[in-house]
Amino acid sequence: MAAEKNTQTVAGDTAGNAAGKLTARSAANASRSLIDILDLNVAEIEQLIARAVDIADNPEKYSRACAGKKLATLFYEPSTRTRLSFEAAMYELGGNVLGFSQAGSSSATKGESVADTAKVVSCYADIVAMRHPYEGAPLVAALNASVPVINAGDGGHNHPTQTLTDLLTIFRRKGRLGGLTIGFCGDLKYGRTVHSLVRALARYEGVKMVFISPAELRMPDYIGADELGKCGVEVLETESLDEALPHLDVLYMTRIQQERFKDQNEYLRLKDSYILRREKLATAKPDMCILHPLPRVNEIAVDVDDDPRACYFEQVLNGKYIRMALINELLNGGWVQAGVEPVVDVESASSVQIEQAQGKCGNTQCISAAEPSIAPLVRPVTEKSQYRCFYCESLVESVKS
Amino acid sequence: MAAEKNTQTVAGDTAGNAAGKLTARSAANASRSLIDILDLNVAEIEQLIARAVDIADNPEKYSRACAGKKLATLFYEPSTRTRLSFEAAMYELGGNVLGFSQAGSSSATKGESVADTAKVVSCYADIVAMRHPYEGAPLVAALNASVPVINAGDGGHNHPTQTLTDLLTIFRRKGRLGGLTIGFCGDLKYGRTVHSLVRALARYEGVKMVFISPAELRMPDYIGADELGKCGVEVLETESLDEALPHLDVLYMTRIQQERFKDQNEYLRLKDSYILRREKLATAKPDMCILHPLPRVNEIAVDVDDDPRACYFEQVLNGKYIRMALINELLNGGWVQAGVEPVVDVESASSVQIEQAQGKCGNTQCISAAEPSIAPLVRPVTEKSQYRCFYCESLVESVKS
Amino acid sequence: MAAEKNTQTVAGDTAGNAAGKLTARSAANASRSLIDILDLNVAEIEQLIARAVDIADNPEKYSRACAGKKLATLFYEPSTRTRLSFEAAMYELGGNVLGFSQAGSSSATKGESVADTAKVVSCYADIVAMRHPYEGAPLVAALNASVPVINAGDGGHNHPTQTLTDLLTIFRRKGRLGGLTIGFCGDLKYGRTVHSLVRALARYEGVKMVFISPAELRMPDYIGADELGKCGVEVLETESLDEALPHLDVLYMTRIQQERFKDQNEYLRLKDSYILRREKLATAKPDMCILHPLPRVNEIAVDVDDDPRACYFEQVLNGKYIRMALINELLNGGWVQAGVEPVVDVESASSVQIEQAQGKCGNTQCISAAEPSIAPLVRPVTEKSQYRCFYCESLVESVKS
Repeated sequence: MAAEKNTQTVAGDTAGNAAGKLTARSAANASRSLIDILDLNVAEIEQLIARAVDIADNPEKYSRACAGKKLATLFYEPSTRTRLSFEAAMYELGGNVLGFSQAGSSSATKGESVADTAKVVSCYADIVAMRHPYEGAPLVAALNASVPVINAGDGGHNHPTQTLTDLLTIFRRKGRLGGLTIGFCGDLKYGRTVHSLVRALARYEGVKMVFISPAELRMPDYIGADELGKCGVEVLETESLDEALPHLDVLYMTRIQQERFKDQNEYLRLKDSYILRREKLATAKPDMCILHPLPRVNEIAVDVDDDPRACYFEQVLNGKYIRMALINELLNGGWVQAGVEPVVDVESASSVQIEQAQGKCGNTQCISAAEPSIAPLVRPVTEKSQYRCFYCESLVESVKS
Repeated sequence: MAAEKNTQTVAGDTAGNAAGKLTARSAANASRSLIDILDLNVAEIEQLIARAVDIADNPEKYSRACAGKKLATLFYEPSTRTRLSFEAAMYELGGNVLGFSQAGSSSATKGESVADTAKVVSCYADIVAMRHPYEGAPLVAALNASVPVINAGDGGHNHPTQTLTDLLTIFRRKGRLGGLTIGFCGDLKYGRTVHSLVRALARYEGVKMVFISPAELRMPDYIGADELGKCGVEVLETESLDEALPHLDVLYMTRIQQERFKDQNEYLRLKDSYILRREKLATAKPDMCILHPLPRVNEIAVDVDDDPRACYFEQVLNGKYIRMALINELLNGGWVQAGVEPVVDVESASSVQIEQAQGKCGNTQCISAAEPSIAPLVRPVTEKSQYRCFYCESLVESVKS
Repeated sequence: MAAEKNTQTVAGDTAGNAAGKLTARSAANASRSLIDILDLNVAEIEQLIARAVDIADNPEKYSRACAGKKLATLFYEPSTRTRLSFEAAMYELGGNVLGFSQAGSSSATKGESVADTAKVVSCYADIVAMRHPYEGAPLVAALNASVPVINAGDGGHNHPTQTLTDLLTIFRRKGRLGGLTIGFCGDLKYGRTVHSLVRALARYEGVKMVFISPAELRMPDYIGADELGKCGVEVLETESLDEALPHLDVLYMTRIQQERFKDQNEYLRLKDSYILRREKLATAKPDMCILHPLPRVNEIAVDVDDDPRACYFEQVLNGKYIRMALINELLNGGWVQAGVEPVVDVESASSVQIEQAQGKCGNTQCISAAEPSIAPLVRPVTEKSQYRCFYCESLVESVKS
């Protein structure tokens, strides 16, 4: 696996991110959580991937690794695949599972804060996987729980176990994460999984990325060619999947939703060109691998499923293995003892550039905007005179009164 | 138990059914599934019943039979009794359970196909129990999963574990399945459990059936006296439960729903005569046994519950035992190794009379009508110049262009 | 712990209650259930508390205590905290869990009676925890189940495991249940948990209670100063939390819901005075302990959480331990063999003052009013010429025709 290259400059301002959240912990017992893929450095990702491969090869060895332990799956919105993946992972480690699969059957309907729920569930479970429609909610949970919290998706913000799944899948197919040409196809503007994977891959040597999308759904500038170029990533943008296909080692497909287009004629003109069909694969490398975060609708035709390059169902299996590795690491691993000091102290907001904000976050999907008891906090964007919300990372206009 | 008599002629056209679906398997690992009660031959049913009796007698012997295995309960519509029965069964075999209890908390709301869900869940579980409002959905799942799929009810179509439950209950009470006079009372027109049990029992020697229903809710012709007569089953039809009662060894009660009647005066005239009350049992045989698939509303009065002939709660317990037997057989049994060749090859539709249909199935409740990616297939009805949909078995007008 | 003092006179008419429901059992196997906190005498509560303390100190000792057993959580309305507490408890005893978390995903929507559900679930589980919006539903379940039933909350009626949780929390903090001054603050009129805890504490020697509430939300007369005075409890009522605070050993906070006030000016005038903030605690005893049944909204400010007197999250942990103790006792304990004769025989209604009622209960939230098949029963109120419904305990106008 490629050595760590540069964690400071990915997409310009993520260094503060990595520094600020790598060690997001509860005050109670300093347990480690995973909120953002950049919470993990390259060595830690390497360690997780190696563990996942060992689990896939020797499942029996891990079948009692978490015996007597309990995972709480707190899913404030339904996501069957992710939830079942976590549950299967915990069962295969010998543990048990409790939780809820949608807010309707939870106390959330009684208006309990995420912080209180995190404290309560810490009494019931040894580890938490949280899915929440509000951005930053799992971070708030991690800051209040006395057990590790895994972000299982917070709105359009982060979904780090999906990114780990993607990385494991590429690694198991290609034997490495560096030195690859990776195409991202579809809706690159709103695609949470794509943004996260791009940031994670930008840390490896020799990565080339091809962004394939209609103009309306281009990769945002703050994560685009210029920023990635600073990290040494070679970037190419195109509207044509056919054109890009012959050059790719990995093709990451995502769905294009009709409602994203302002101009419906543009949608009709483009939509077919972003559907992957078997005949299109003729020009692709024979060992290219096709990923998709699933569920798909029709962006990959069913006739591709039997092609050896299709690995989106393999990806599902890898998702289980990497979650097993992560849960095992958080419950039994050496991370907690690693001596990393907690740098986030919400009460005083005095450490590592975290500052009190002037008012509530302007992003209505931010958990700090939704819950009155959460203190508004921001952190400065590296090398720019801007601030980002500590919870949802959206840009904040002004912070000082 | 009676020897197998005739699997070819039950209700006229089920031979193709038995042949076509007995071996419905996934391409991936040729695991066995249970979609339709007629997927099982008489010897296999006998084997399951014997196993269930052994489990009931020696539960401890099976308490680790599926240790380390996982059952996925994929319930696209709620059915607490059936779901809890499967879950209790799996736990008593030492296994674990994951899944969802209604579509609202599943990715189904994101429009994922049943086929994709089956492939995904095969990564998480060792066996699947699927309940679905669309007919044929569990068959589609079985064709795509790499693990065994059990149909836990697909709309008004099949519910084979209910039929196995009924057979086990009759067997444990009567010591046999042949040579019995069995009354079916209530709504025989729409009653899925009744149709399925009639077909299963028609394979045994010396069975007499009494169909007790108002004219509007008579047993359909295609499963009625004429067809059963061809199988050697003696059939009597009557509107009077009182008249039939003294002759019965088994009474299978079902509910009559008011909304089924066009003529409400007819409903008012008849409804009381189909309610089983304690006083009515005076004329019944002392060892008659009363079955009901539950839940009941008021078609069996509560004062019948303590009568020794009532065995609908015993039936619930038997439902757990037969599901334990089935899960144990599918995960640990000899069926997979039995050397039965897969005869359904959906891709080519070339084998065993499966043919490409001209268009989508006309049954709006058929999964193949609901999902665009499912190839429309039909199979010829034996001895008739008709076709039935491969998935939902409804008659199809024309198939060849 | 204080010795039992007087179980006969708590709140005037609960003796019949204690006598009538202490031994509510199923006809089938005489298993013990817990429906009302007064089902337990002081010695039994002492035994449960001692067990819970032992479990908290030696969790490993109990980690297989219920291996191979199954808990059914039948939650007809959502209550995440209570449900997860029961599930965590069962898992930590080595058992398994099945059930449903809201009526929408259950057969309840098909109109099955609570009695039938109880009989069915007895086939699937070894013990049941039931939450139901209708008062008396868990009692009906207990009378029909062949396994122990624990009331996990029935509408505004009972919630005995919450009361046990409160008692354990007070005991672990204070070392005793008698000889304490306990303040109850907030909505004392409708607060189910408060009523239940008051009744449970009234059985101990030397208890003083301070009821702190606005006039509109005063403790009801039937549980108020006069009635408690008869039990030897010293009672003080006040509108001022500030005034009461310096005298309290225990402060039990509850929420005041705005919609309870007829006069909104009154609400605005009072609401702030019932919010507990850190600065208010200056006058409180340094070893006072603050309880809250949770979830809180804003009646306890977040800045109180870190005060050592705050023990509402400790209470959550204690809730798990006392439920472990209860489940362990009901499944493995000596209560069933204790030789207590069942005194409730619903069929004949001949024993212990249970009588047939003239008509259905007038409380629309009573399960006996909601379900046609439940026989209306009443019991005389001790020393008064009144009757209470056997199921929901509401006063019934007249019973004899």
